[in-house]
Amino acid sequence: MFRALLLALASLTAVAQTGSDAPRYDGDGKLMLPENYREWIYLSSGLGMTYGPAASADAAHPLFDNVFVSPAAYRVFVNSGHWPDKTVFILEIRRSNEKGSINNGGHFQSDVAAIEAEVKDENRFPQKWAYFGFGKSTAGSPFPANSTCNACHGANGAVENTFVQFYPTLIEVARGKGTLKTGVGEVAAHR
Amino acid sequence: MFRALLLALASLTAVAQTGSDAPRYDGDGKLMLPENYREWIYLSSGLGMTYGPAASADAAHPLFDNVFVSPAAYRVFVNSGHWPDKTVFILEIRRSNEKGSINNGGHFQSDVAAIEAEVKDENRFPQKWAYFGFGKSTAGSPFPANSTCNACHGANGAVENTFVQFYPTLIEVARGKGTLKTGVGEVAAHR
Repeated sequence: MFRALLLALASLTAVAQTGSDAPRYDGDGKLMLPENYREWIYLSSGLGMTYGPAASADAAHPLFDNVFVSPAAYRVFVNSGHWPDKTVFILEIRRSNEKGSINNGGHFQSDVAAIEAEVKDENRFPQKWAYFGFGKSTAGSPFPANSTCNACHGANGAVENTFVQFYPTLIEVARGKGTLKTGVGEVAAHR
Repeated sequence: MFRALLLALASLTAVAQTGSDAPRYDGDGKLMLPENYREWIYLSSGLGMTYGPAASADAAHPLFDNVFVSPAAYRVFVNSGHWPDKTVFILEIRRSNEKGSINNGGHFQSDVAAIEAEVKDENRFPQKWAYFGFGKSTAGSPFPANSTCNACHGANGAVENTFVQFYPTLIEVARGKGTLKTGVGEVAAHR
């Protein structure tokens, strides 16, 4: 009886852990912003990152990007170097401040400028991965399957469609597990 | 019986949650680096932040700082605006890269340059808060009680000795709970 109860509790806990951070959609197929994504696993931040020949940084007001991933997916990645179905990434873009309190150089983070999401949902999306933009809403509209998001992530992501090359703790995992795409995942060492 | 078992399990879970991220010291009084701090709650990042008249940013190679706090302490703060005893902050300082993969502007994070910690341990430290630097070691030596860390955090922290003014989600909590120090915690709004 004890054993049965413990197994039931363990099962409930597992469901709660894996179910709570899986993607959820509203009736229009929009992704619902996970309320607690700031308590998910942090992967890295950049400031003023730009890519592609058309992109140019706004040097006066660069934006920070913070990347979070769902905890259940993170644990699978750490053990395997692969992203499981139902992985959710949140890209939080924040404005930067330069002067405030005791800071008199460099940049710190201010209010949210935009939030985007990347989701692996194999049954829902033929390309497996999909991308969503949240305006002021808590429901994110999907970008079309031929969007530049899909194309660039697919071509340049170091592991599947994800930019693991920019996540310093995870690139070591992927190297160790041998899951980096050949010729894509290596970033030049510092200096 | 079921009820007793459930209570026992709940108690064990609570101990595991609050006990696992409390500060731990070695026999020399050094703080042991929490192995899983990257899975703690992320608060914010800066790039090239400097303070004080003597500090100057290395514009060519600015450093990122990432701040993490122990999950149990975070939950108390969200509910109260105060930091409980045994709160641990980890400051992770990383080098920055500018060129790599598809990035051709701005900065992304590279390897760890330094790790420091701030700990609230009321029985252990007369000033309640203490500061630790980790070199290449996983055991952090405490800075003396009259260090500039102690003085600056005490004088300029927006909530107790902590720089909540630089943590955009927590400053809203502190405002709501009325725990910001008067005249210290406000950072100029963006632009």
